[in-house]
Amino acid sequence: MPQNTKSDLLRYGNAGGYLPLKKILAGFYPESSGDQLFVANGSLQILDLIANHYLDPGDTVLVESPTYDRALKIFRRAGLEVTGIGLEEDGIDLEELNRVLDKQDPEILYSITDFQNPTGITTSKEKRKQIAELAERPGFEVIEDSPYRRLRYEGDDLPTVRSFNPEAVFQISSLSKLVCPGIRIGWLVGSREVTDQLAEYAEDTYISPNQLSQGIVQWLLKDGWLDQRVEKLKELYRPRLRATLDSLERYFPESHWVEAEGGFFVGLWLPDPGKGEEFYRLVEKREVVFSSPDGFFPEKGGEGFVRLPFPALRTTELEEGIKRMAEVWHEI
Amino acid sequence: MPQNTKSDLLRYGNAGGYLPLKKILAGFYPESSGDQLFVANGSLQILDLIANHYLDPGDTVLVESPTYDRALKIFRRAGLEVTGIGLEEDGIDLEELNRVLDKQDPEILYSITDFQNPTGITTSKEKRKQIAELAERPGFEVIEDSPYRRLRYEGDDLPTVRSFNPEAVFQISSLSKLVCPGIRIGWLVGSREVTDQLAEYAEDTYISPNQLSQGIVQWLLKDGWLDQRVEKLKELYRPRLRATLDSLERYFPESHWVEAEGGFFVGLWLPDPGKGEEFYRLVEKREVVFSSPDGFFPEKGGEGFVRLPFPALRTTELEEGIKRMAEVWHEI
Repeated sequence: MPQNTKSDLLRYGNAGGYLPLKKILAGFYPESSGDQLFVANGSLQILDLIANHYLDPGDTVLVESPTYDRALKIFRRAGLEVTGIGLEEDGIDLEELNRVLDKQDPEILYSITDFQNPTGITTSKEKRKQIAELAERPGFEVIEDSPYRRLRYEGDDLPTVRSFNPEAVFQISSLSKLVCPGIRIGWLVGSREVTDQLAEYAEDTYISPNQLSQGIVQWLLKDGWLDQRVEKLKELYRPRLRATLDSLERYFPESHWVEAEGGFFVGLWLPDPGKGEEFYRLVEKREVVFSSPDGFFPEKGGEGFVRLPFPALRTTELEEGIKRMAEVWHEI
Repeated sequence: MPQNTKSDLLRYGNAGGYLPLKKILAGFYPESSGDQLFVANGSLQILDLIANHYLDPGDTVLVESPTYDRALKIFRRAGLEVTGIGLEEDGIDLEELNRVLDKQDPEILYSITDFQNPTGITTSKEKRKQIAELAERPGFEVIEDSPYRRLRYEGDDLPTVRSFNPEAVFQISSLSKLVCPGIRIGWLVGSREVTDQLAEYAEDTYISPNQLSQGIVQWLLKDGWLDQRVEKLKELYRPRLRATLDSLERYFPESHWVEAEGGFFVGLWLPDPGKGEEFYRLVEKREVVFSSPDGFFPEKGGEGFVRLPFPALRTTELEEGIKRMAEVWHEI
C-alpha cells in the first residue's frame, strides 16, 4: 500500500465510499462505473438512508410477502406504507404486482431475487425481465437486494433484474455473507444521480463510512481472493443445503418447502397452518429454535411458515433438527 | 487477544458497542458503568439516532448560537424546531435560556461546553451547574457534546455538566480528534434507559457498529496509550493555539476573539460585521479560506464571524494567514 493510502484511511473519507474499494466493487458490474457505486456501513444502513431521506413518509413500498424482517422494520419506522405482494415458486406474483401498481401508485418495489430471505425462492429469468420493464414507470423504482447472489450451490446464475435495466433498478449487496459481517460493508449500484444523493445523506448522517474496514477489504479483494473465498463457502454450505432438502424429503414429506439452490435459507410450510403455534411451542422444547415467522410477513399469513437457516449447522445437526420437527408434527 | 475475541470481531456484534471497548471507555466516567455507554459509528450518527428516533418531528431543540453546523443540519433534517440561544464569553446566555424554557417547552438542549465549535468558548463552572439543574425539568434533557474536552492546552479542566447530574444529562464524545476520524468511533454516556433505547434504534439501522474498528481501538486503549497520545497532540497543538492568539493580538487588535484554552477553533468577530461579505471575498483571493459562517448560526447573526481552525497549520502559516487577514481588513 503506498504511503498516502495508509494515512487516507485514518482521515475522514469520501462519504460515498473509499475510491479504491469502489473501483474493485464496480468490477463486479461490467455495465457500471465506480461513480455509480455507493458504499456504506452495511447494506441495512443504505435501506435506512433510502427509507428516511430518499423517500417521504407516506410513500408506498411494495415488498414480497414474506420478506426480510429488518427491511420491513426500517420501511415502517420511516413512516412508509408497506404493501406485501404474494411470492410464488418463481418469484413475485406479477399479476398481483400489476394490479397494485395500477391502484396504489407506489414509489418502490423491494425484491430479493436470489435465494430470497426468508423463503430461499429465486425469481425466474422471465419475471426478472418483466420487473425490469415495470421499473420504467415514471416515479417507480426497483431495489434488487442481492446479498446471497454469489452463494449458488446448484444450477446456473440468472441475470440480475438490474442487468435488464441498469438505469432504473438499484442493486444492493454486501460482504457480510462473503467476507464477514463484523466489517459492516454494503453497497448500492445505481444511477449516478442516486449514488450522489445517497452520499449527501450519508455525509449528514455519519460523515464517511468506516475507512479502516474499507481499506482492509480493498486490500483483501484486490487480487481475486474473494473468488477463492466464495468457492470455499460454497463447498462448506452446499452439503448443508443438500442435507436440509434430503432430510425434509425423508422425514417430513407431507410438508411443502422451497428447493433452494443457494443462499442461507429454506422456507418450509407446515401441512396445517392452524397448528403452527402449537408446533413452534413444542419444537422449541426439543431445542429446535426458529425466528418467529410474523416478522417476515407485512400482513397476516405467517401461520405455519418456518425459515430454516442452514449454513451455521453441520449436516448431522440439520438432519437431527428436521427429524425432531417431523416427530413433533406427527405428535400433534 | 484471546482466540474468541478475534472471531467475535468478524461477526455481527452488540448493537450498543463491543463490550471490552465499552468497559475501557466507561473507565473515563467514574460515575458510570459500561451499560451506561452506547458506542456508534462516530458521534454524529448518535445525534442522528437521537434526532430521528428518540425525538419526534416538531420537537424543539435548543442550541448555542453559533453551534456545530453538522448538528444543526441533522436536527433540521429530522424535522425538529431549532432555537438558538446566545453564547457569552462564559457559555450559553442563561437568562435567555430560562426565558425560552418557560415559553417554548423544548425537549433538548444541545451544548458544546469545552472549547466550543465554532467559537472556542468554554462554559464556566457556575453555568455548568445551572445547566445541570435545568436538566431536572420534566421532559427536558441536556446533551453535552465533548469531542475536544481532553485537548486542553492552557488552564485546568472544569467538571462536566453531566458530573453535576449524571441521570439527566447525556454526554457525547468521540475518538475522531484523539485517535483518528477514519475509525469512526463515538459514544454516548447516559442513563441505562437511554443507552438501551439507542441500541435498539442502532440495531434497526445498521445492526451493529464496526466491530474491527472497535477491536483495534480496544487494543490500542487498553494499556493507557491514549494518555501518551493526548499529551503528544497537546504538545503539537498548544503552540499553534498560542501563535493564533498572539498573531491576532499583534496584527488584528481591533477585532474581537475568544481566548480559547483548547480544542480546534478560535472564534473571531470582525470589527464591522457589515463588511463581512467583502472581507471573506477578498481574503479568499489571498488564499485564506474559511467555512461560511452561515452554517453555524441557527438564525441570522453570522455576519462578520470567522472560525479559525488552527490544529492543521504550522505556527508560521497561522501567523501569515492572520497577517493577510488584517491586511485585507485594513484595505476595505
